Amino acid sequence: MPEVHICEVGPRDGLQNAKHMMPTAAKKAWISALAAAGLKEIEVGSFVPPKLIPAMADTAEVVKHSLNIPGLTVVALAPNLKGYQRAVEAGAHKVTFPVSASRAHSESNVRMTPDQMLAEVRKCAALGGAPIEGAISTAFGCTLQGEVPEKEVVRLAVALAEFCDSVALADTVGYANPAQVRRLFSLVKKEIGDKLEGAHFHDTRGLGLANALAAYEEGVRHFDSSMGGLGGCPFAPGASGNVITEDLVFMFESMGVSTGVDFDALLKARSLLVQAIPEEPVYGHTPLAGLPKGFRAAA
Amino acid sequence: MPEVHICEVGPRDGLQNAKHMMPTAAKKAWISALAAAGLKEIEVGSFVPPKLIPAMADTAEVVKHSLNIPGLTVVALAPNLKGYQRAVEAGAHKVTFPVSASRAHSESNVRMTPDQMLAEVRKCAALGGAPIEGAISTAFGCTLQGEVPEKEVVRLAVALAEFCDSVALADTVGYANPAQVRRLFSLVKKEIGDKLEGAHFHDTRGLGLANALAAYEEGVRHFDSSMGGLGGCPFAPGASGNVITEDLVFMFESMGVSTGVDFDALLKARSLLVQAIPEEPVYGHTPLAGLPKGFRAAA
Repeated sequence: MPEVHICEVGPRDGLQNAKHMMPTAAKKAWISALAAAGLKEIEVGSFVPPKLIPAMADTAEVVKHSLNIPGLTVVALAPNLKGYQRAVEAGAHKVTFPVSASRAHSESNVRMTPDQMLAEVRKCAALGGAPIEGAISTAFGCTLQGEVPEKEVVRLAVALAEFCDSVALADTVGYANPAQVRRLFSLVKKEIGDKLEGAHFHDTRGLGLANALAAYEEGVRHFDSSMGGLGGCPFAPGASGNVITEDLVFMFESMGVSTGVDFDALLKARSLLVQAIPEEPVYGHTPLAGLPKGFRAAA
Repeated sequence: MPEVHICEVGPRDGLQNAKHMMPTAAKKAWISALAAAGLKEIEVGSFVPPKLIPAMADTAEVVKHSLNIPGLTVVALAPNLKGYQRAVEAGAHKVTFPVSASRAHSESNVRMTPDQMLAEVRKCAALGGAPIEGAISTAFGCTLQGEVPEKEVVRLAVALAEFCDSVALADTVGYANPAQVRRLFSLVKKEIGDKLEGAHFHDTRGLGLANALAAYEEGVRHFDSSMGGLGGCPFAPGASGNVITEDLVFMFESMGVSTGVDFDALLKARSLLVQAIPEEPVYGHTPLAGLPKGFRAAA
């Protein structure tokens, strides 16, 4: 079965929403351990105003450290042109932009309408410096607006595909269900083909893995997930943790789908996370239960 | 999309493994509330020796109460002929037998080999009195034995289909993955057709809903689940909670698959559970997060 590519977003999506600050040195050690476990892409931080999200204030330094890890694709999030310029300056290999399909969430998150944000990302692409992912936030629904029309998601995807290197669909607030995942990925793929790359799910209503399974079966091979199920958007009420990396790896590996990740090494990275912010709740079934007796990872 | 039929197993699979005893009166009230939420089948207890599982000592009385709930199919578990006789005497509408595909688990659970257990269930079927489900335990792997050969599961299913009214596949210890679920349900269905009915998953490694999704897509329409994710087999080390009814209902309803269950009424039943055994940990994402804004249940 075709392998998958997991982008660990814990250091960005996870820590931006954590109640406890992880010291920079601990972030670096954690990211190194994540990479050592076989995660070849890590979203290490975001270039947002430190006043808004203090936990991301050290992103430039964290990017610098991460660039020294051989073979690692270092991703950073940017909410606007200024953030993109800082990301490029820091040397990020790839920059992801949250382009919300909900006007209410877009205005809350980046203080721009979806169309203003499209124009902003287009400016960044014209400027160049690092490959750009356009991540369509709240693609499956929004806690502020409620339903998000699929036509709007398709419209944004088509627009982004013109000037982005890849497009992702993100279930920012955990509203997606597997039938909707199949339908929307299929709809968007029909319009923009292989430019549609990533799936970003949250586990807010427990459907994260089921949605990832549905996306995989629709041909998606790039998944975001977060160690310990950390995560959530500070500007989307009710958003909670991402799909849990440990359980996602277990699901795919047990199905015979290679992730390139070593489970025991992943648990070492998890112990660094827990040591660094011990009071932060971390989730995950497989770390508690252990791997099944006689378990074999995918070849 | 074709509707599903959920059998709530919390009063049996859940309470048999809970650390806290639920008083009989509370069980009755809880079962009534579960039925009022639209659950049309409930596994209300088991006829096992009270010395082994004290929490099930009141099963006859609980069955008697449940028989007064209009439209409810009252299920009881029996581990042997004596249990079956007690279940029939109590008036259970359906009796389920755990026939383990792992010899080690079978001997630990019912003190019989799989073939001895087959013979026992055959005797019960010959005796008659209530429809019988043969539930193949540890069908996807076993914490004692490790791997369980698929051929053995198929062999037991074919044997059970001869004299049982229905056959279920149970992932007693949460080892199953979606690819395996598809493969094994398909294999068994090829041999016994519509006699293959139920899927019983545990969420030990977080894959419960993903496995339920895979089974649904393979044509399975009958699912066991447990309110609050209670559950686990006292004689299978490492077994933990069942698929969570609340999240299973949310998954199916959000996909447009009717379960017949009303979510708000389900939360009322959940509050009775929590009141009755307040120190027992209960799980479930959707009860905490709430339904999505603008959520519509399946028609």
